[in-house]
Amino acid sequence: MAENRQVLIDSLPEDKLSESNYRLETTPIPEPGKDEVLCRTLVITVAAGSRAGLQGSASYAGGPNVNVVMGGTGVARVEKSNSAILSPGDLVVCGTGWQDYSVHNADGLLKISDDVDPAHYLGALGTNGLTAYFGLLDVGEPNEGSTVLVSAAAGSVGHMVGQIANIKGCQTVGITSTPEKCQQLQAKVGFDAALSYRSEDFRGELKDTCANGVDIYFDNTGGDILGMALRRMNVHSRIVCCGVVSQYDTSNPGAAPTGIPGLLVNKRIRMEGFLIFDYASQFETAREEIKGWIKSGTLTPLNDEFDGLDKAPAAFVDLLAGGNIGTRIVRIED
Amino acid sequence: MAENRQVLIDSLPEDKLSESNYRLETTPIPEPGKDEVLCRTLVITVAAGSRAGLQGSASYAGGPNVNVVMGGTGVARVEKSNSAILSPGDLVVCGTGWQDYSVHNADGLLKISDDVDPAHYLGALGTNGLTAYFGLLDVGEPNEGSTVLVSAAAGSVGHMVGQIANIKGCQTVGITSTPEKCQQLQAKVGFDAALSYRSEDFRGELKDTCANGVDIYFDNTGGDILGMALRRMNVHSRIVCCGVVSQYDTSNPGAAPTGIPGLLVNKRIRMEGFLIFDYASQFETAREEIKGWIKSGTLTPLNDEFDGLDKAPAAFVDLLAGGNIGTRIVRIED
Repeated sequence: MAENRQVLIDSLPEDKLSESNYRLETTPIPEPGKDEVLCRTLVITVAAGSRAGLQGSASYAGGPNVNVVMGGTGVARVEKSNSAILSPGDLVVCGTGWQDYSVHNADGLLKISDDVDPAHYLGALGTNGLTAYFGLLDVGEPNEGSTVLVSAAAGSVGHMVGQIANIKGCQTVGITSTPEKCQQLQAKVGFDAALSYRSEDFRGELKDTCANGVDIYFDNTGGDILGMALRRMNVHSRIVCCGVVSQYDTSNPGAAPTGIPGLLVNKRIRMEGFLIFDYASQFETAREEIKGWIKSGTLTPLNDEFDGLDKAPAAFVDLLAGGNIGTRIVRIED
Repeated sequence: MAENRQVLIDSLPEDKLSESNYRLETTPIPEPGKDEVLCRTLVITVAAGSRAGLQGSASYAGGPNVNVVMGGTGVARVEKSNSAILSPGDLVVCGTGWQDYSVHNADGLLKISDDVDPAHYLGALGTNGLTAYFGLLDVGEPNEGSTVLVSAAAGSVGHMVGQIANIKGCQTVGITSTPEKCQQLQAKVGFDAALSYRSEDFRGELKDTCANGVDIYFDNTGGDILGMALRRMNVHSRIVCCGVVSQYDTSNPGAAPTGIPGLLVNKRIRMEGFLIFDYASQFETAREEIKGWIKSGTLTPLNDEFDGLDKAPAAFVDLLAGGNIGTRIVRIED
């Protein structure tokens, strides 16, 4: 292959994103300059957050552009190096975008080892896995036998929370969208129980399933699910505030659930937000521990894979429709 | 005095409580039985929470009664003792009720020293003072230079939070109802700044006063004030959930402020409820530290005093109208 295939944003979505908003082009492979490296993309991850970059002026990601390469994080192999830091053959995590080749300043690229599937660096060993790790362990403080409830449990973060909680000897209950995903949460991720929030009697099912109450609620959603979880919390329990998926798609976020702060007082609940960047100094240690779990088979990160750069738009459209379980990955080259 | 004066509940309030809901009677002084002590009431505290006991069936305090002695906590001196635990002359905290004499089983009474004004055991060294102490120090975790915002700052808990925060080198901002109380918060309690939530531009004043943001918000109110405070919180700040005064008087508590949990995530805020009973094993140590501050003049608990048992109803009515600053005390005998 002597050319660089690229997926460009062809047009901005009017309503729902479709594959036709993208087009494939080929350009010459770029040359690295001083201190730069040429990277060959091996695998990319597709994240729901990228959708915001395609919005109009309301987006925090700045004004959207067409005719540019779609951005995204990937794992790549260094092909050429003009830097003493990296050598050809090294594997790195970088902002590859949706293309075969990209050029980067070698400084600041995360060099990774090849002793596990490099794709894990976009999931279990990447931002989402670390979010699950520090959110659950540092903010949630699980004990053996704790009941851990997780919303958006089939997501890249949520499914890792479930698995790490299992490793710590917790009872795990996942909340997701459909009965099919519930089945997968139990069979593939190992959740002890799984519930669909779309179920007519979700409130009752949550109560029955968490008959002994909830010790840690890992909240990826906010909104009504938070409100219902709040009423299941035990004395001295913790609510780990990780994200507010339910509020992302509106410019006018609704009121928080009733019972705040009254229930927090009566039950002595700690409700705490966190951002992964605050833990940067501990990333390496955490990655080593997670990698140990993967190698020993204690933890099985789910990478929900599409194959081929040309499938990236389809992988993204499907992700936005809630089709994935685990981390959505697109393999570009083995 | 050979008789026991008692304030009885004469009738239940239809709407607002008035002095005429009470009557004064005299009865013979009771005799202590086996293991019991006869206590002479010295001082009682009047607490807003007692109002609930005069409500209809909706009250958690059980059905209200008329023609019984009004309940309440006081400091008393043991007059006669049939117990080896206590001797005549000992000072104790007990449920004296609004009367001159009462009889109690000696077991379980808190014996106190007389090296500070015994009335402090109903305020600074009592439940409210300990609530301020553990809420601020254990949940709030103040540092020197922290900005501490307190709602219901003129109350029995709130004014103690302000003083302990000052001792810890914090900047203190109190929220109360009127400009007069604001003035007292600064002059008598030592708050660095004070704001009236009834002010037309309270939101703007809060923003200007807390120009560097808030590190600890000690929340006694919940509701709208919580919502406005939430938007002033700094990164990694703490909201100490102590009470929800704004919601006590309604059977249909409103929604919590918007921004929960979104702002908790973005700012990594910890919002935590607590109840003082969880700290029982540390009460004695805390009381000694607070007593040390009182003796050294570092802390000046405010006891807002009425004089004479017959003034107890007036003291209560005035308290409910928001007339007090600090702990409302009624002196029965010196």
